[in-house]
Amino acid sequence: MKPTMAILGSTGSIGRQTFDVCRFLGIRVAALTAHSSAEMLAAQAVECGAEYAAAYDAEAAAKLKELLEGTGIEAGPPGDEGLILAACREGVQRVMVAVSGSVGLAPTLAAIDAGKEIALANKETLVCGGSIVMRRVREKGTLLIPVDSEHSAIHECLYRRPGDMKKLILTASGGPFRGWTRQQTASVTPEMAVRHPNWSMGAKISVDSATMMNKGLELIEAMHLFSAPAEDIEIVVHPESIVHSAVEFRDGSILAQLGPADMRVPIQYAVTYPERCASQAEPISLAAVGKLTFEAPDMENTPCLALAVSCAKRGGTAPAVMSAANEAAVAAFLRGRIGYNEIYDRVAAAVDGCGFTADPTLGELLAADEAGRRFVRERID
Amino acid sequence: MKPTMAILGSTGSIGRQTFDVCRFLGIRVAALTAHSSAEMLAAQAVECGAEYAAAYDAEAAAKLKELLEGTGIEAGPPGDEGLILAACREGVQRVMVAVSGSVGLAPTLAAIDAGKEIALANKETLVCGGSIVMRRVREKGTLLIPVDSEHSAIHECLYRRPGDMKKLILTASGGPFRGWTRQQTASVTPEMAVRHPNWSMGAKISVDSATMMNKGLELIEAMHLFSAPAEDIEIVVHPESIVHSAVEFRDGSILAQLGPADMRVPIQYAVTYPERCASQAEPISLAAVGKLTFEAPDMENTPCLALAVSCAKRGGTAPAVMSAANEAAVAAFLRGRIGYNEIYDRVAAAVDGCGFTADPTLGELLAADEAGRRFVRERID
Repeated sequence: MKPTMAILGSTGSIGRQTFDVCRFLGIRVAALTAHSSAEMLAAQAVECGAEYAAAYDAEAAAKLKELLEGTGIEAGPPGDEGLILAACREGVQRVMVAVSGSVGLAPTLAAIDAGKEIALANKETLVCGGSIVMRRVREKGTLLIPVDSEHSAIHECLYRRPGDMKKLILTASGGPFRGWTRQQTASVTPEMAVRHPNWSMGAKISVDSATMMNKGLELIEAMHLFSAPAEDIEIVVHPESIVHSAVEFRDGSILAQLGPADMRVPIQYAVTYPERCASQAEPISLAAVGKLTFEAPDMENTPCLALAVSCAKRGGTAPAVMSAANEAAVAAFLRGRIGYNEIYDRVAAAVDGCGFTADPTLGELLAADEAGRRFVRERID
Repeated sequence: MKPTMAILGSTGSIGRQTFDVCRFLGIRVAALTAHSSAEMLAAQAVECGAEYAAAYDAEAAAKLKELLEGTGIEAGPPGDEGLILAACREGVQRVMVAVSGSVGLAPTLAAIDAGKEIALANKETLVCGGSIVMRRVREKGTLLIPVDSEHSAIHECLYRRPGDMKKLILTASGGPFRGWTRQQTASVTPEMAVRHPNWSMGAKISVDSATMMNKGLELIEAMHLFSAPAEDIEIVVHPESIVHSAVEFRDGSILAQLGPADMRVPIQYAVTYPERCASQAEPISLAAVGKLTFEAPDMENTPCLALAVSCAKRGGTAPAVMSAANEAAVAAFLRGRIGYNEIYDRVAAAVDGCGFTADPTLGELLAADEAGRRFVRERID
């Protein structure tokens, strides 16, 4: 029984791979959305025989409407509304949330309320709104399956026996500047930062991987996904990116998930769970891999990670402020407006400067997100 | 809900550790047996408040009877009968079969027929009688949980989704003579062979680990335990013995079980499954381990492994002959009667010389076992 899908953010890296996986597995995609790539979105919608497509950007939405004329495919409105209509569409069982940024939160909550299952590739949904999102998932008794390779690995290792967990082991490649001092990373350029050694990813997430902010955000996500306190999550640097993550159980036994650095594997897992299908990924051979190495993270020279761990422990609005401030700081770095080491400086300043609410409402979380983003932007633009 | 146990072979290495685990977890042990260590057996029976104890050896059985006089503990008869009475005892729910050699087969079958659950640490039960034993387990709808660290790892990785398995990955330490040529191993003495680098084990199993016959026997066991053809089981040498084994699923994802080289973890898993309890084992830290390595086995210089794989593929009586011949050859080696490399020569000769039945009955399997053993003994003693 394969679910009928909606893909939010279908023209991005994860979205395109989800589209590819659905085609490969013969899974019906009924609704698609994108930010502004109207042409690719229209082509996808026509190819998969979707019922509905929507672009977030107003100009792109107008163009999409033109492109879909005569195809019988409904062109949705721009903005949140278009995404929410896709996520809640009748007949859709599972929603892949592959949009980037906090824009993913509203359609995810709407989809959960509509009883849909969620395949989640959007970090902000959990980093910012994790406590609220996971509470609604439990209330609705629906599924939320993570797409990140690390969380997918943990989900797989925990499979049906979360009660036995002692510790989550989140692996990190360490990024392209593993072993570099802060002095050395001062001269890192955007071109250097987006070249990830093991995974092919978007620019923002590649920078996050380099600063290891990515791993900090994943730790916060893991806390929500698996109901684990930050103290029970260990980050281990594993440069080969073969062990995607692991779980230690109360008897001392560790289950680890290993596999190729191919996002189609965790995407497929999230799309087909609890079923498992053959995939297009090239399997790995341990004998051919030969060696797997592990080391503790260097917190001193990756201060973004240390900051994220501290925000994770603090909870409340701290992760939302941090994540949004990081989004703005990384964007500024990619535009050449600030240096690499300044990413941390700007984010840390935002966390210090934005105030704190311990038990926030959804509105307060979104306000904290906005405040973190604005704090950084106002001091750059 | 912890099961009331019987321990067959309670004074051997696995038996003593099982006794220790049961004491640690507060699990009731109602019946115990040993081969000939009457004093240790009597002491164990008194300590744990057993109802029944039996020694296989006739002289030891007589001594045990004396030792237990006045304790209220029943002393069983010698031979198979004493073991079978322990295994089938009313009130016992799970039987740890930790006797060594083909003597384990009869009480295991009797226990299955009596509806008991089996924790199996005896290789011969599956190597010799695997097809019959597993059929009875299925017919009775009972549990059989392996105790070997490798099979325990695979059992754990397959947990509730055996249908998705593509390949089993059986790891091997490679033993103390990894990288040695046949010319170099010619001068190996019993003292050298029993020093296993990672595990503390009995003498016979240490020699099997050195020749890698052990891994071949485990491959045959895995075929029966997990209904896998030999072609779907890959042996990978992993000298650190941290990854105890792994499973590749049809989507290319691999689950691996890692843990300390402490048999109490798989013993406890087999005793408490499907529950999991905190254990006494020192947990491992991946960052402290630092490095895990893998390589393909050197079939040319470990001909026992190649022979076992070929017997595994052949099936029928071949594994029974091979396993029994190996038992006799290793015993002769440990007594200084044949050289290390001759272990292979003698076993290969027995496999060639003992005839073959493709679809044997239990009687034919036991006869093949006896024939393999006699073939080797007659040419030495």
